[in-house]
Amino acid sequence: MSSSSPRQVVRISAGETAEREDLLPTEEPVEFRLQGVPIAVLMRTPGHDEELARGFALTEGIILHPEELAEVRALPGLDGAGRYDLVLAEGIHVDEEQFRRNLYATSSCGVCGKASIDAVRVAAPPLPAGPVVPAGMLLDLVESMRSVQAGFDATGGLHAAAAFTGEGEFLGVREDVGRHSAMDKLVGRLSSRRWPMGEMVVTVSGRVSFELVQKAAVAGISILAGVSAASSLAVDLADELGLTVAGFVRPGGFNLYTHPHRIDTGG
Amino acid sequence: MSSSSPRQVVRISAGETAEREDLLPTEEPVEFRLQGVPIAVLMRTPGHDEELARGFALTEGIILHPEELAEVRALPGLDGAGRYDLVLAEGIHVDEEQFRRNLYATSSCGVCGKASIDAVRVAAPPLPAGPVVPAGMLLDLVESMRSVQAGFDATGGLHAAAAFTGEGEFLGVREDVGRHSAMDKLVGRLSSRRWPMGEMVVTVSGRVSFELVQKAAVAGISILAGVSAASSLAVDLADELGLTVAGFVRPGGFNLYTHPHRIDTGG
Repeated sequence: MSSSSPRQVVRISAGETAEREDLLPTEEPVEFRLQGVPIAVLMRTPGHDEELARGFALTEGIILHPEELAEVRALPGLDGAGRYDLVLAEGIHVDEEQFRRNLYATSSCGVCGKASIDAVRVAAPPLPAGPVVPAGMLLDLVESMRSVQAGFDATGGLHAAAAFTGEGEFLGVREDVGRHSAMDKLVGRLSSRRWPMGEMVVTVSGRVSFELVQKAAVAGISILAGVSAASSLAVDLADELGLTVAGFVRPGGFNLYTHPHRIDTGG
Repeated sequence: MSSSSPRQVVRISAGETAEREDLLPTEEPVEFRLQGVPIAVLMRTPGHDEELARGFALTEGIILHPEELAEVRALPGLDGAGRYDLVLAEGIHVDEEQFRRNLYATSSCGVCGKASIDAVRVAAPPLPAGPVVPAGMLLDLVESMRSVQAGFDATGGLHAAAAFTGEGEFLGVREDVGRHSAMDKLVGRLSSRRWPMGEMVVTVSGRVSFELVQKAAVAGISILAGVSAASSLAVDLADELGLTVAGFVRPGGFNLYTHPHRIDTGG
């Protein structure tokens, strides 16, 4: 399985019609089990599945620390779908039923309205005061992410999440058809080094939703910068939790929605 | 509640820093109940909630015909979240448990791999042979959708789904922070006129995912055109079901992934 899948397409442009092979972003379901109990089916781009499982378990609060997950064990797939069992470390117990996902579910959130913000506040660690990064560097980091989006280059249809230190050092990038899964893969990858992830800038290729802020906050990420808009509830949550959110980060400028003290505008 | 929410932002551009009010796409949770039993919590943009409920119930297979849903009854909200009860028509019974959504769920699909395609095939009506639309018209329809995206104009952060007859007559547009909810609102709006929706072109502002194809197919929509990429599984499903999918529909051309006979290239 690859992040891109070849398909025959008909390309129509300027009155010309041509059959050709095109690379499509791969979308396939994956099932996660917790100690054998099915808890979630996600649509994702195959690859880095173990990181996705680890990140998902962390950012959804299934485990509170990377060491609580002993193993992500591949199970025989069903009709080509991926399937993994999250095996907890000895002595760790969680209520599988609490995290069971109904197989029909679409985008949703844990709890409602103000209560959802309170719930995330409990789960999220206090965020570090820093880093403080120059405004121009934020633009550079989004450019850097763009330059390493190999899957997007191939397909034009994959989201990305990338991490950098406060000094702009590149820490990693992950791609997925889903914005949330790109973030979870990145968190899964970096969580083994340090948890919470600490002073860090994470850039995302799309919109900043409530759920992305939730995942970032639970991972301890203090600066989240998106190429597109941030939603009202994403901004309200980031405001509450002390997370710096920037949006529309594109050549020429950006919007700072919350906690601007981490961005040095030179003023 | 409005589709856009004012927030104070710091705008940084070309070294200048200015505080100003900006309009953000509104994202708020809504809970749907079925005969009193909670079945789903969605993040959505408020407005047209009844259409969203009706479309969601139809495209997720909770009901098989618009008339099976007697009423979408507003319930007292919880902490500012919307809450509605789907009241079934007399004599209609469905298993609420089957459609209950776990409150923690994120993007997912009903069943796995090839089995998911089979499941949708059962739920989807046979698609009409037409319409057949000129290639140039497809580009015009996407332009038309763009010209009526009032919420996007205000916020730069809302998805849209629009419907047109095979002759290019505009039937409606709906916007939402979520692509799926924009589609469900549109289906909910149009389903009262005719079900299945019949010969129609639906344009969407983003990517064409498995779930969007699923929703379109269940609604009987035969041409789905997106501004961005189509995923591998979306194309596989559309191929199976006889749905025409176009992607990257932008000035200058587009890709046809499946069933190109409904697009007249003049050749």
